[in-house]
Amino acid sequence: MFGSDNQAPAHPKVLDAIIEANQGRCGSYGDDPWTARATEALYTVFESDDLDMYCVGTGGSANGLALSVLCPPWGAVLAHPQAHILEDEGNGPEFFTSGARMVSLGCASQLVMPADLEQTASRHAPTFVHGIQPRVLTLTNLSELGQVYRPDHLRSLQEVCARQGWSLHVDGARFANAVVAFGASAADLSWRSGVDALSFGLTKNGALAAEVLILFGAARSAAAPYLRKRAGQLFSKHRYLSAQIVAMLEDGLWLDLAIRANQTAHALAQILDGAGAKLALPVEGNEVFAHLTELQVKALCEAEIGFFPWGGLGPDTYRFVASWHNDAHCLEAVAKALQRNEVPNL
Amino acid sequence: MFGSDNQAPAHPKVLDAIIEANQGRCGSYGDDPWTARATEALYTVFESDDLDMYCVGTGGSANGLALSVLCPPWGAVLAHPQAHILEDEGNGPEFFTSGARMVSLGCASQLVMPADLEQTASRHAPTFVHGIQPRVLTLTNLSELGQVYRPDHLRSLQEVCARQGWSLHVDGARFANAVVAFGASAADLSWRSGVDALSFGLTKNGALAAEVLILFGAARSAAAPYLRKRAGQLFSKHRYLSAQIVAMLEDGLWLDLAIRANQTAHALAQILDGAGAKLALPVEGNEVFAHLTELQVKALCEAEIGFFPWGGLGPDTYRFVASWHNDAHCLEAVAKALQRNEVPNL
Amino acid sequence: MFGSDNQAPAHPKVLDAIIEANQGRCGSYGDDPWTARATEALYTVFESDDLDMYCVGTGGSANGLALSVLCPPWGAVLAHPQAHILEDEGNGPEFFTSGARMVSLGCASQLVMPADLEQTASRHAPTFVHGIQPRVLTLTNLSELGQVYRPDHLRSLQEVCARQGWSLHVDGARFANAVVAFGASAADLSWRSGVDALSFGLTKNGALAAEVLILFGAARSAAAPYLRKRAGQLFSKHRYLSAQIVAMLEDGLWLDLAIRANQTAHALAQILDGAGAKLALPVEGNEVFAHLTELQVKALCEAEIGFFPWGGLGPDTYRFVASWHNDAHCLEAVAKALQRNEVPNL
Amino acid sequence: MFGSDNQAPAHPKVLDAIIEANQGRCGSYGDDPWTARATEALYTVFESDDLDMYCVGTGGSANGLALSVLCPPWGAVLAHPQAHILEDEGNGPEFFTSGARMVSLGCASQLVMPADLEQTASRHAPTFVHGIQPRVLTLTNLSELGQVYRPDHLRSLQEVCARQGWSLHVDGARFANAVVAFGASAADLSWRSGVDALSFGLTKNGALAAEVLILFGAARSAAAPYLRKRAGQLFSKHRYLSAQIVAMLEDGLWLDLAIRANQTAHALAQILDGAGAKLALPVEGNEVFAHLTELQVKALCEAEIGFFPWGGLGPDTYRFVASWHNDAHCLEAVAKALQRNEVPNL
Repeated sequence: MFGSDNQAPAHPKVLDAIIEANQGRCGSYGDDPWTARATEALYTVFESDDLDMYCVGTGGSANGLALSVLCPPWGAVLAHPQAHILEDEGNGPEFFTSGARMVSLGCASQLVMPADLEQTASRHAPTFVHGIQPRVLTLTNLSELGQVYRPDHLRSLQEVCARQGWSLHVDGARFANAVVAFGASAADLSWRSGVDALSFGLTKNGALAAEVLILFGAARSAAAPYLRKRAGQLFSKHRYLSAQIVAMLEDGLWLDLAIRANQTAHALAQILDGAGAKLALPVEGNEVFAHLTELQVKALCEAEIGFFPWGGLGPDTYRFVASWHNDAHCLEAVAKALQRNEVPNL
Repeated sequence: MFGSDNQAPAHPKVLDAIIEANQGRCGSYGDDPWTARATEALYTVFESDDLDMYCVGTGGSANGLALSVLCPPWGAVLAHPQAHILEDEGNGPEFFTSGARMVSLGCASQLVMPADLEQTASRHAPTFVHGIQPRVLTLTNLSELGQVYRPDHLRSLQEVCARQGWSLHVDGARFANAVVAFGASAADLSWRSGVDALSFGLTKNGALAAEVLILFGAARSAAAPYLRKRAGQLFSKHRYLSAQIVAMLEDGLWLDLAIRANQTAHALAQILDGAGAKLALPVEGNEVFAHLTELQVKALCEAEIGFFPWGGLGPDTYRFVASWHNDAHCLEAVAKALQRNEVPNL
Repeated sequence: MFGSDNQAPAHPKVLDAIIEANQGRCGSYGDDPWTARATEALYTVFESDDLDMYCVGTGGSANGLALSVLCPPWGAVLAHPQAHILEDEGNGPEFFTSGARMVSLGCASQLVMPADLEQTASRHAPTFVHGIQPRVLTLTNLSELGQVYRPDHLRSLQEVCARQGWSLHVDGARFANAVVAFGASAADLSWRSGVDALSFGLTKNGALAAEVLILFGAARSAAAPYLRKRAGQLFSKHRYLSAQIVAMLEDGLWLDLAIRANQTAHALAQILDGAGAKLALPVEGNEVFAHLTELQVKALCEAEIGFFPWGGLGPDTYRFVASWHNDAHCLEAVAKALQRNEVPNL
Repeated sequence: MFGSDNQAPAHPKVLDAIIEANQGRCGSYGDDPWTARATEALYTVFESDDLDMYCVGTGGSANGLALSVLCPPWGAVLAHPQAHILEDEGNGPEFFTSGARMVSLGCASQLVMPADLEQTASRHAPTFVHGIQPRVLTLTNLSELGQVYRPDHLRSLQEVCARQGWSLHVDGARFANAVVAFGASAADLSWRSGVDALSFGLTKNGALAAEVLILFGAARSAAAPYLRKRAGQLFSKHRYLSAQIVAMLEDGLWLDLAIRANQTAHALAQILDGAGAKLALPVEGNEVFAHLTELQVKALCEAEIGFFPWGGLGPDTYRFVASWHNDAHCLEAVAKALQRNEVPNL
């Protein structure tokens, strides 16, 4: 139920768009009207046409492709110790970059801080040919711990990157949840804050499978089309990826779904809190991390509320992820399992 | 119209299955009932459960993944000079295999022949550490030139492979069209003829995007799950890939659609032949190669019949690919453009 | 003077052997009598002929080649946070392995401890396809901090590896210094303690450029010759690598030189200690780590005693490496710079 | 005897330089006076200081490193069908480039011709993302068939490359033999003819193991030092590579030795011709290709004249390679085996 937002189905409007796109023959590999529409929609959402979009099938390949554009094989990619790109993509980053080093930043906080970057920069001289050569900082926004990198935070990190000559990539598997959290715009959380490349994920948010690598401004790359093709990520019947993007972006569905997921997470947190479960972290997006007693865990498991232990925050900590598809019944089920009567309105 | 079968839409039954699969939450990454059903369907179609299936999003990644399982980075992959895997996948094979050599066999025929293999084997001593080390033969069935490798042909090639210690991979982007061409079974054209790995393509045949790498018998590999994950080809909402497979396989839709496409190709060939266009090759599947005069090309272009020049067979040769979606109107349009009245029944 | 043992010249006997080998023509790529002799010498030194040797030109390539044999591209290599293989080989390990993950173990000690491995094993489930997949533990012996992994220590680590299905590699850039430190044999510190692969370095010890990758027992690999060739590490005039090995191994020169270097390090430590410089770590091989005052640093620099700061042990810590070539004059120079009169006998 | 020039010993002057370099301690990794001298010597020989040099241990790694600088992983490298880089370096080029495609040009001649390039260019559209993307032409000079690419020939090829945006690399394992063949200069056969990168081989010519990758002008690359380090090709005791280069270049030894080898080849050809063996190709450098009868082969084998069959030129063709070390005795042995009395003066 709250195991992950990738367990949710796609939103019906996404399917409607696919059905609509499924009329007649059209050009393959992106040479079709739906892809043109998706591109326009992206320009609008990001308030810029100084960007290139590359649709792919999974978040891992969007991230890998981004790094392959930004990082040479002898460079290093810096990430938060709990970053998905470090912990949950097999050796995808190394594969796509032909062997870049993945470096876990020694972060004391749930988010990467400028001081973390300064410390790493001071350890790795760019002229020391034997050593690690940082070239890219990758952030996850919404982060794996459910926190938002806000524009000023992004900008402060980007300033260090700019000084060091590093690029800035954002893994946006839950980008929408970050965008709606505090009223920032898509542009605020990307190019306007100096982000070079964004893995813009729509799958968790409500698509079937649609992820977009966006390269902004100077990071636009003549190599990227070849890198995507080489990676087996150029879809022949490309219109079906594009139709999902159109459905999500044109009428703001992507924001509506993220708002709903975030609201559900807040409500869930309220229920857990009311039941005496201490929150491990403030809820900012659609993820809730809570300390649970063994009894609470048992009760929730018996009620078949899906959720996972999150070892990175301690042995009694568990993660719940809300999706667009969670409704009041889901919240009631949690409340009931924890013997709470009140359920906040969504 | 006849530019490629990947310009066709998906069959409505495939969309129906996706809509049906889009109910409620379920496990991600293949831990769902649709994937279980797809696996069973595959066992039935291939008359064996001594196989592993890996669903991916594109044919290029199915091929790449297959080679990464079968070929070490210091080995070589042998292919027909016109093979898609050599000519049309960027450097995908090198990428997935971490640098295997792609070798174009010196084939005099439209199909790879045992003698081609013997000659290559004689040129490359397995103990000569400096030289090319063939490890895999990859065939395309239906071939890029529209021809079928029949079971006895496959077996004769596989015998050379077995003697040399080479694996046998089949790129089956149009596997269905080969299966129905002469009444062979899926098993006949795969493991029963010694095929180790099959890229079983359903996209061109009528799915949205569904390709299955199948590893048979001794080629089943503990490494394959990690290799797929690393390549960004493990889909989170996996049920949608599986639903397409179920729709195509459970009731024989995949065969029906291939039969229709092949019949259309035969009818198209008849029309072209009737209009005086000499066929460059016999039609066996859903592809037609014909020599056209400039006038004929002009007339077909004006009528917006999509098709492509095929330089590999000479400057006046053109390829037409029929899909499940081509109907009598398409044939009539060709006939009309070439000033023919009769159109064969489909 | 004490900057690194790779600043020392080669021992004259090594040059003598090269001159001797430089007579007439002979087979290339290892098909020569010197390579046969070197192989025999290796069998004797390691008390076993159940091993394969691969001569290469640098330690980095010996390590990379070892990992490419032991670790699949989707696997991970575990190492001490200060390991050379992590910090000082560019992205060599990723390059040679086609993208294996390099994992810094969270070691509290100067040496890797079994508990470090257990903790890492517990964090990374082998069946979790998304996660990091440890496959190899690599140790440096003599370690980067000058410490020795003794046989019982190696064995205790290897036991964890065996339970987890991990291979054990030793980076032996200063293997000789470890061997002579406490009277272990080469076999004790390698196969007899369960080591699968050893990068046996002779360059720092007194050769010009001669490093040997040794694969023991079950780790002997049919792929290794191709992997070495592919990496541009199969030398055509191979006899000159082999002659260096013969010169070093046949009459025990490799041990003599290591003994001398270790003794010099002990004497140096005595001088530093006598001058009030606190040793940061006990001296076991040919490396000395000491805390120095700013005045001491200044005095040593003015006397042109080469040495380096070693940030990993704190801001006031410095590393001195003794080589076979350091003699009493070197020690006297240090003593003089620090205003000490007594110099220990070598 | 004539199996290959890599079976010859090093010239004594090269050893003398190594002995001279073996005095005292010095900086490692190229921070030493011998490397500075070698660099100066290279500037003089190539009449330019607009170049960077990278010393490595083998020709394969020089070639691989060159390609890794010039070719992106999604690009292709064009070479003559008999090129060493295609046939004799394992999958080194793919390894170093992280998966570039190696393309065998369809050459009718023993040398690559501009028309071969034009034809390849016409087949591979740069904007066709699916297809092969040529980026580098690599030539071998002296070629594998013993022929010289002269300056005007190089220039005519380079002009096609420039139009297409391709780089030009020369594998100069026998560069000296090409330079002295017709009185061209090192500059004429490299940057002055538009060569971007040269693998300048000294090993076959008379060194122990010394190969230099030279990047000229616009091809000088900030990435190259990291790429070399990553590949395990940055030697710690670098002075010994540099000393070889100094010995070979400073006093023209590299030219003297090549002249001697070429003269010996011409004399050998004369003997073979006099014995009725038809030359397969004109002798331009230090290689002789001749058609031999079975009786001649037998006689030469019995006399232990080393040489190899060269299948690429037909079943009765054999290759002889002369080195600096072959003297009159070698020629007499051939003459005697073939029952000829006269031996040309060297």
